[in-house]
Amino acid sequence: MSRAAAVRFDPDDPVMARAAWSRLAEPGDHAASTLVGRLGPVAALRCVLDTDPRTQRWRTRLPDLDPERDLGTLHRLGGRLLVPGSPAWPPALADLGGREPYCLWVRGPLDLVMAGARSIAVVGARAATAYGEHVAGELGAGLAERGVSVVSGGAYGIDGAAHRGALAVEGPTVAMLACGVDRVYPQGHERLLARLAASGAVVSEVPPGSAPTRWRFLERNRLIAALGRATVVVEAAWRSGALSTAKEADLLMRPVGAVPGPVTSAASAGCHRLLRDRGAVCITDAAEAAELAGRIGEDLAPQRQAEATDHDQLDPDDRRVFEALPLRRGSDQSSIGRAAGLEPAAVQAGLGRLSLLGLAVRDGAGWRRAPRSAS
Amino acid sequence: MSRAAAVRFDPDDPVMARAAWSRLAEPGDHAASTLVGRLGPVAALRCVLDTDPRTQRWRTRLPDLDPERDLGTLHRLGGRLLVPGSPAWPPALADLGGREPYCLWVRGPLDLVMAGARSIAVVGARAATAYGEHVAGELGAGLAERGVSVVSGGAYGIDGAAHRGALAVEGPTVAMLACGVDRVYPQGHERLLARLAASGAVVSEVPPGSAPTRWRFLERNRLIAALGRATVVVEAAWRSGALSTAKEADLLMRPVGAVPGPVTSAASAGCHRLLRDRGAVCITDAAEAAELAGRIGEDLAPQRQAEATDHDQLDPDDRRVFEALPLRRGSDQSSIGRAAGLEPAAVQAGLGRLSLLGLAVRDGAGWRRAPRSAS
Repeated sequence: MSRAAAVRFDPDDPVMARAAWSRLAEPGDHAASTLVGRLGPVAALRCVLDTDPRTQRWRTRLPDLDPERDLGTLHRLGGRLLVPGSPAWPPALADLGGREPYCLWVRGPLDLVMAGARSIAVVGARAATAYGEHVAGELGAGLAERGVSVVSGGAYGIDGAAHRGALAVEGPTVAMLACGVDRVYPQGHERLLARLAASGAVVSEVPPGSAPTRWRFLERNRLIAALGRATVVVEAAWRSGALSTAKEADLLMRPVGAVPGPVTSAASAGCHRLLRDRGAVCITDAAEAAELAGRIGEDLAPQRQAEATDHDQLDPDDRRVFEALPLRRGSDQSSIGRAAGLEPAAVQAGLGRLSLLGLAVRDGAGWRRAPRSAS
Repeated sequence: MSRAAAVRFDPDDPVMARAAWSRLAEPGDHAASTLVGRLGPVAALRCVLDTDPRTQRWRTRLPDLDPERDLGTLHRLGGRLLVPGSPAWPPALADLGGREPYCLWVRGPLDLVMAGARSIAVVGARAATAYGEHVAGELGAGLAERGVSVVSGGAYGIDGAAHRGALAVEGPTVAMLACGVDRVYPQGHERLLARLAASGAVVSEVPPGSAPTRWRFLERNRLIAALGRATVVVEAAWRSGALSTAKEADLLMRPVGAVPGPVTSAASAGCHRLLRDRGAVCITDAAEAAELAGRIGEDLAPQRQAEATDHDQLDPDDRRVFEALPLRRGSDQSSIGRAAGLEPAAVQAGLGRLSLLGLAVRDGAGWRRAPRSAS
C-alpha cells in the first residue's frame, strides 16, 4: 500500500495517534471505535492514511488533521492530554468499554483519578428555576465539603450552580464539555470556566477548536455519567438532556438519584418521571447524594430523627392512661379508667409507671399530666 | 352466673351488641376484639354483663352504656349503623382481620360498598402549605371526576382540601372521623362536615358523643387505609400522623403513593421519606393516583409524551448529517461530510433520506435544513 496522505506528526506515536483519532472520528462513531479497538490507534490510523477504501469516512477530515497544533494549543493553556492505560487515566471510564474515548483533553490541576474515585455527577436543566439552582448549589457545596467531586457539564442552570457550589467551598469539580477546552461555551460562563480551569478540571474528548454540536452533547453525557460514581438529576423537564445522562448511568449500572420538586413545576417533571418509572433514589440533600457514591459502610446519610415524644415509647395501655389524663385539674382513677376504657388495676399500674417516667403527677385526690409532657 | 348489670336494650340482638361494644371497648383494644371474635358480640357482651372477672376492664363503662340512645342520636341525624356481614358493609374492611371495627356509625347518602370498590385515601398534614392544599384539591377533584372515591380524615389542611376537591365536582368522598359523627371536629369544618353528611359520608367506629382522642386518631387511620384501595400522602412532616396511615396501608398490602414537593419544604419531608425509604410510588397528578386504585388494564395513567422532534427517529449517521446541515445558507456535500465526520456516500444517502422526510432541502449547489425542522 502506498502512503497517500502526508502528515505533520509521527503517526506511529500511540499518543499522537489517539489525538488524531479524536479529530477524525465523531464521538460515538461505532465503526471508528471498533477499528481502533481491534487494531490499536496506530495501525487503525495507518489504514486511514494508507487510503484503505473502508476508511473513506474519516479521510474527509484529513485536511484538518494536525494533532501537533492541537497539543500546542492545549499546552499554551496549561493543559494535558490523557490516554487510556496511562496512570493519570481515570479507571472509571473503562466501564464504557468500546465507548471509552480515545483520549481526554484536560485543563486544570485536578487529578481525575482521585476525582473519579469518589464523585457524583450533578446534572439538570439549563432552564432551571431559582429552586433548582438553589438545590444544585447546596448539593455542589455539600458534596465537595465531603470530599466528593462534583462532575457536571458546565452549562447554564443546574450545571453551573453545582460547579459554583463546589468552587465556593474550594472543593473538587470537573466540567465535561461538548466542545474543545479552549472554547468558551456557553459564553456567559467565561468566568466560571476560567475558575474551573484554575482550580478544578475542564475536560473534553474532542480536540481544541471543536464546536459544541447537539450530537457531541449527547455523547458527552456518557462521560459525565461514567466519571460520576452516581448521577443525580436536580431539575429536568419531561424531555431533557439530563435524562440522557441518567440513562447512561443506568447503562453503566451506576445509581441514579433524582431531586423532587413541586409537581406543579414543569422543571421537575423529568425528575418525578425518574422516581416513578426508573427506580431513581429520592435525593433531598448532599448527605443522601454522597451516600450514592459511597464506599459501603462510609458515606451513609444520617437517618434523620425527629425527637421522640415521651409517650411514644409507652405500651398501649399506659398510653391510653396517659391520653386519658387531664392537662389541668386532676381526675380520679375511676374517671381515668372510663376515659381510657381500662379496668382499675390497669389504670393504677399505668399511673405508677407514668409517674415514675415523670409523665403523670398527683393533683389533690386525682392525677393529671406532668406539665412538661403535654402532647 | 348471676346477671349483675341491668341494661336498657336487648343484649341478645347482635346489632345492639356490636353498638354496645363500640362504646365499651376503645378502638384497638386487642383483648376486646379477641373476645368478640371468639364468642361473637352477643356472648362476649354477656360475659361483661354477667360480671365475668376477666371483663372488668370494660365494666368501667357500663354506667354510660345506652346503645338505644346512641342509635336515637344517629337516626335523628339521618344516619345508619353498619355491621360486618350486612350487605351494606364495605368488604374492604375485612382485610383488617381482627382489627375490623365492631360497627360503623354513618351519616350521609354515599354507599360505602360502592365507594370502597374504587377509592383512594388522600391524607396529609394539618399544617399544610398552600402548595399542598392546591395539590390535594386537584387530586380530590381529579379522582372524583374519574369516579374514584376520596377517603380522608376530615381534618384541616390536606384532608379538608381533598374532600373539598371531590365535593366541588360532586364526586364521592368519605370522611373517617376519630370522634362521634354527631360532633363537629375540627370546629372550623362545621360547614365541610355538613356538606359531607349531605352528599358523601361521615363515618366513625366510635359512637355519637365520643371525643376525638389522640389514641382514636391513630386507630382511625387504619380505617382510612383499609377503605382506600391505596393511600396517597400529599404533604407530611418528617414525623406525621399521615405516615401512620401509610404504614397501615403497607400492613394491608395496599399501594402507597407520595406526592413530592420542594426539598426545602419541611412539609414534604415525610413524603420524600416514603419515596426514599419505603418504596412509595411518586404521584404527580390524579391520573397517576387513580392508577394506584385501578382495576388492572383500566385506570392506567396516560404515559405523558412530549412531541418527538423529527430527527429523534433518524439512524445515527442520518442524524449526524442532519446536525451538520446549516440552518440558513446551503452547504456543499463535502463540508457537510467533514462536519458530520462521514464519507461522501453516507452523506449523499443521508441527504436523500432527509430530503424524503422533509428535513433537508436543496439550496443552490448545497443543502440546508428544511425550515420547519429546526431543532
